[in-house]
Amino acid sequence: MSILIKDVLHNNHITDVFIDSKKFSQIAPNIKALADITINGKNKAILPAFYNMHTHAAMNLLKGVSDDKELFDWLQKDIWPREEKLDSEMVYHGTRLAILEMIKSGTVGFFDMYGQQSAIIKAADEMGVRAGVTAVAIDLFDPAETKTHIETIENFFSDFTTPSPSRIFKALSAHAVYTVSRTLFNFVTETIEKYDTLLNIHACETQKEVDDCYKYKNCSPIELLDKHRLIGPKTVLAHSIFLSDKDIDIILRNGATVCTNPASNLKLASGIFSLQKLLDKGVKVTLGTDGSASNNSVNMITEMKFCSLLAKIKTMDPKAGKAEDVFKLATQNGAETMGFDAGVIAEGKLADCILVDLNSPLMVPNYNIISNMVYSADSSVVDTVICNGKVLMQNRHVEGEDEIIATAKEIAKKLA
Amino acid sequence: MSILIKDVLHNNHITDVFIDSKKFSQIAPNIKALADITINGKNKAILPAFYNMHTHAAMNLLKGVSDDKELFDWLQKDIWPREEKLDSEMVYHGTRLAILEMIKSGTVGFFDMYGQQSAIIKAADEMGVRAGVTAVAIDLFDPAETKTHIETIENFFSDFTTPSPSRIFKALSAHAVYTVSRTLFNFVTETIEKYDTLLNIHACETQKEVDDCYKYKNCSPIELLDKHRLIGPKTVLAHSIFLSDKDIDIILRNGATVCTNPASNLKLASGIFSLQKLLDKGVKVTLGTDGSASNNSVNMITEMKFCSLLAKIKTMDPKAGKAEDVFKLATQNGAETMGFDAGVIAEGKLADCILVDLNSPLMVPNYNIISNMVYSADSSVVDTVICNGKVLMQNRHVEGEDEIIATAKEIAKKLA
Repeated sequence: MSILIKDVLHNNHITDVFIDSKKFSQIAPNIKALADITINGKNKAILPAFYNMHTHAAMNLLKGVSDDKELFDWLQKDIWPREEKLDSEMVYHGTRLAILEMIKSGTVGFFDMYGQQSAIIKAADEMGVRAGVTAVAIDLFDPAETKTHIETIENFFSDFTTPSPSRIFKALSAHAVYTVSRTLFNFVTETIEKYDTLLNIHACETQKEVDDCYKYKNCSPIELLDKHRLIGPKTVLAHSIFLSDKDIDIILRNGATVCTNPASNLKLASGIFSLQKLLDKGVKVTLGTDGSASNNSVNMITEMKFCSLLAKIKTMDPKAGKAEDVFKLATQNGAETMGFDAGVIAEGKLADCILVDLNSPLMVPNYNIISNMVYSADSSVVDTVICNGKVLMQNRHVEGEDEIIATAKEIAKKLA
Repeated sequence: MSILIKDVLHNNHITDVFIDSKKFSQIAPNIKALADITINGKNKAILPAFYNMHTHAAMNLLKGVSDDKELFDWLQKDIWPREEKLDSEMVYHGTRLAILEMIKSGTVGFFDMYGQQSAIIKAADEMGVRAGVTAVAIDLFDPAETKTHIETIENFFSDFTTPSPSRIFKALSAHAVYTVSRTLFNFVTETIEKYDTLLNIHACETQKEVDDCYKYKNCSPIELLDKHRLIGPKTVLAHSIFLSDKDIDIILRNGATVCTNPASNLKLASGIFSLQKLLDKGVKVTLGTDGSASNNSVNMITEMKFCSLLAKIKTMDPKAGKAEDVFKLATQNGAETMGFDAGVIAEGKLADCILVDLNSPLMVPNYNIISNMVYSADSSVVDTVICNGKVLMQNRHVEGEDEIIATAKEIAKKLA
């Protein structure tokens, strides 16, 4: 499948873009190649697509079911009882709904943490996006659960065949230091070393998590994870609001990645991430939306605005959280962390991109398209989405979206 | 002009809505009335439209021209020199661009603070929205400027005829305590009392403003304005981040309204508004986007999310800034403050409303439509906008939008 995009704005110039064999094969004016699909790029700009580096996609089925409550009430009374009802089919349909919302807001990849992984892989495979799908280690210090999780994780890595290995990969999540036993952490370490896989961990999301870790383990969550050899170049630390300077040094020394989730951190009243400090120190930062029960959105465009503006208020410095920096962490940094040679529009890179409507009032004037994307845009500006050289959305239409919506509405009735 | 909306979701029930003589004349199932326009409301919900209670609409022409800079550099080097170039025609076209963006995100009214008021009135009149257009008192303590402003303001109130008095009204702005002299404040007081008009003031936007006021006037900005009899039931205090308990008492006692501008307050690193505290004390709060140089958007849907989530982090309480409260201040409170009997969908009320797409993935599932609007939605969910009984947008199309965009692009070239 080849795609020729004609007369599109790229880096302030009008050009053509030729996509072939899943890559940007040529970027130049007046390309004469024959393509399977030709897209008129007039009044549109080509930009990198987004990678949502921390989410629980299937929770899209729970958006709006419970808000504005104390964390304990929210989780125990409203969210957990509903999550218990989520079988494989529900997770499949919930993940499809999330992917639809992601595509419609320009996201082509997500790093997920949720159960029923085969359903998640199926949804991502069918809908054409990139996904890191993780088995989740969480035993709540119950030895029976430890055993079950070890088996489940073993099965996940040994039994499944990944349907679209160029887009979808398997990885591991360890839920958090307050939900995973020492035995299970040891198994997590063995597993990521054995399979050389990405590891996703909730870390330092709340002050309480850090305080409790000092209380029970006499060290910070990052120090504890480091003792387990779990802070490495393939580790993605979600949230990471409450990091000490020592924690940051550990993260830097081991080349781990941090994923900030700004809207969720506000909605659950957790705290504000120190974006600028981490960027200044050279930590690799990515962006994620978290799950739709605590955001309630998987829209990376709105998330970029939260990310940038919160960096300014955190430091009381309007120079912090610059649009260019935030755009990079939502695109290039995400792709790199997932291990894809994508995230920038350049010849030879994997063909992930969006075309945005330059006639939307949100994009006019166009003094600085990155500023417009971060501060002014919302999903309505995204006209076309391409992932791995395949068109996932054109004219804001995604194939099969009516059926995804209809099914999600039916399933939601069982969760209300 | 009459409009019949068939089979639309309203308060969790499917109903018809009949609009006649600019009002909701009947809300009931199976209305048989003949209407000039019939709208199929299937898979849509009818909701109140938004009122943007603090903006500088024409600054939409400057969005993205300068970001991520120190306040002083930003204002003096980038914004003010460009604002000097803005003649009446540019303000007209900039205001049209802002109104287009507002309509496309469900806003039907705005309370403006900008120069070239006749151009603003013309734009709002033509595009069918409600507007409070204000003469702006700002003399920077220069007696020559004081005189000029007194004359200009007199002319504004005595000379202009308001073209659409049912939608557009004249009012007064006093820029701030640090930019308006005692003489000009005295004239402002006379003028609002003479014309019984709304007054718009930037107040307590930064800690520096408050500190300087104590330093030079030995009181808070609110106390200073109160001495000038400028805190009254028709006063709208924009920003109001740094309010003492005494300030809040003054605001409450005089029945003044506060307008919060959460995204702008983050972008300029000013501070976080105490929404929940003010709501708990009974202060009437409205919502605004501020101008597009400091937001960079006039989208009230995204602004609601900032407003709610910041209330939670300000108090470290996820129960603060509830979706229902924030939705009310963006709709009903705005309409009431502008003096329009609108802002709720009820028989006899002025027919301002939006129809939102219930098949958007942002609105599915629909457990709680207000939660979805505040936390999940963006402008893409707004399908239809009606103001004063007239359709301003249908199927996301606004009449004349292509010409507005084309003209704005041309004008922007002179401001780059």
